[in-house]
Amino acid sequence: MIKASVFVKLKPSVLDPQGKAITSKLTELGYDSVMDVRVGKVIEIQFDESDKASVSEQVEKICATMLANPNIEDYSYNIEIVE
Amino acid sequence: MIKASVFVKLKPSVLDPQGKAITSKLTELGYDSVMDVRVGKVIEIQFDESDKASVSEQVEKICATMLANPNIEDYSYNIEIVE
Repeated sequence: MIKASVFVKLKPSVLDPQGKAITSKLTELGYDSVMDVRVGKVIEIQFDESDKASVSEQVEKICATMLANPNIEDYSYNIEIVE
Repeated sequence: MIKASVFVKLKPSVLDPQGKAITSKLTELGYDSVMDVRVGKVIEIQFDESDKASVSEQVEKICATMLANPNIEDYSYNIEIVE
């Protein structure tokens, strides 16, 4: 089994209202050293195979076509063998 | 500067409809070895300080009280000095 963890984040140039809301709330609560918060997604995909190269190729395709919006989001991933 | 990356995931016992929808779609598209998909959040917090222990304590409190719902979500985080 292989687990791929995909991280999808808004590009740095894209405004993140959810992150801004958390930043404001934390400042209000007294966390004065919090400068910025950005919120993204993590998508964990379990593959029933053990060929890392094949999984990596599939994950790349899945990210580019389905999980991330290339106009506003960046993605990265790591792949590990589990069990 | 310190960057804390917080990962918030649904507990394994909690149904993840978004993950199930992605699994179905991937199977439909021919990714036959995909067994399961779970979707979570990643929250990156920038702190303007360099004391890892202090930041770690703050992040623990922020996670437990604000970022995760302890009834249905688990969280983990890592802390790294940046710049």
